[in-house]
Amino acid sequence: MTIKRLLITSGPTREYLDPVRFLSNASSGKMGCALAQAALRRGLEVVVITGPVDLEYPSQVELYKVVSTTEMCEVALRLFPGCDAVIGAAAPCDYQPKRFSKKKLSKAEFSGVLELEETPDILAALGQIKCPNQMIVAFALETHDAKNRAIQKMKRKNADFIVLNGPTTIQSEEAEIEILSREGTVVDSGHGLKTQIAEKILETLIT
Amino acid sequence: MTIKRLLITSGPTREYLDPVRFLSNASSGKMGCALAQAALRRGLEVVVITGPVDLEYPSQVELYKVVSTTEMCEVALRLFPGCDAVIGAAAPCDYQPKRFSKKKLSKAEFSGVLELEETPDILAALGQIKCPNQMIVAFALETHDAKNRAIQKMKRKNADFIVLNGPTTIQSEEAEIEILSREGTVVDSGHGLKTQIAEKILETLIT
Repeated sequence: MTIKRLLITSGPTREYLDPVRFLSNASSGKMGCALAQAALRRGLEVVVITGPVDLEYPSQVELYKVVSTTEMCEVALRLFPGCDAVIGAAAPCDYQPKRFSKKKLSKAEFSGVLELEETPDILAALGQIKCPNQMIVAFALETHDAKNRAIQKMKRKNADFIVLNGPTTIQSEEAEIEILSREGTVVDSGHGLKTQIAEKILETLIT
Repeated sequence: MTIKRLLITSGPTREYLDPVRFLSNASSGKMGCALAQAALRRGLEVVVITGPVDLEYPSQVELYKVVSTTEMCEVALRLFPGCDAVIGAAAPCDYQPKRFSKKKLSKAEFSGVLELEETPDILAALGQIKCPNQMIVAFALETHDAKNRAIQKMKRKNADFIVLNGPTTIQSEEAEIEILSREGTVVDSGHGLKTQIAEKILETLIT
């Protein structure tokens, strides 16, 4: 299919408990950045929504910076209708504290029980507004029963492909992946630098 | 007093719930790094214990990398007896999950309630083994009732000075601080780049 304008979500999100403390993960944004570079090399227009990361995205990228999963979801819902495909390379937090304290919680004020609630599922939300000529590529990072969980995740998100990788991928320069199609078939797999893996993912998307 | 060998704790710590998710804060390690540079310029031996940060400490620093508060505390307890002073510039998490799941928790497996327990108080632990010729400098980041809370904190940690700053300091190149002595007197204050603030803190320590 023809992809001219590609949306990429990238990096972690943060869910703050109070002005200082948050829940997050070690996603670096390197895969999202490598995907943006690979897409630009192929002449695509690239839109990136990123959580807090320490890297610089290419200057040609239309860049949106967010902090929380809810924000990332709002921006993604606004931008996806204008794009041909989305690659969900971000690692958004799937839980957020039920309550946010404007004051920094002191040990005396905190009971030790943190109540969490689910954040919006960004790709599932995009999956609901997806048009037939749009494509969704999800990422799954699983530590066990990986393939089954990835296929379930793809269906839940109405995604066309899912890129399956392991927890060692986070914060690393390298990744080991399998790309699964809607039917659960491995359409490609590989181990290498995230820049090389990004090329593989774009090939799958574009051919 | 004479300080030849200075221990600095720096950066955030992370408390993992499972292989992917953690509690943390946005401490960048910039203040710890600026303090290390300022101390090296004054000819001190510098030992740094750092949580996960994206910056490079000066190569002359004796560097220890840790992840959790418990690890940072263990390393600090081992190294402090060989040092003349410690500056606690790190922002260690004060809570950790009661249980760590080796498997990445799925939405179905997680109840939404995260039970936390206090982590060791690193400077308070050092305060207990402090010799009369050793010095402890604490940091306090408070959003309300700042001065009172800082003084209480200094006493709890058996510290000689406390550097009081606000939440905007985190992740910033700049800081606005007050240095309080044991008696609660403001011995110095200032607003500026963390490199300048680091010089102020070392002056207080060394004169």
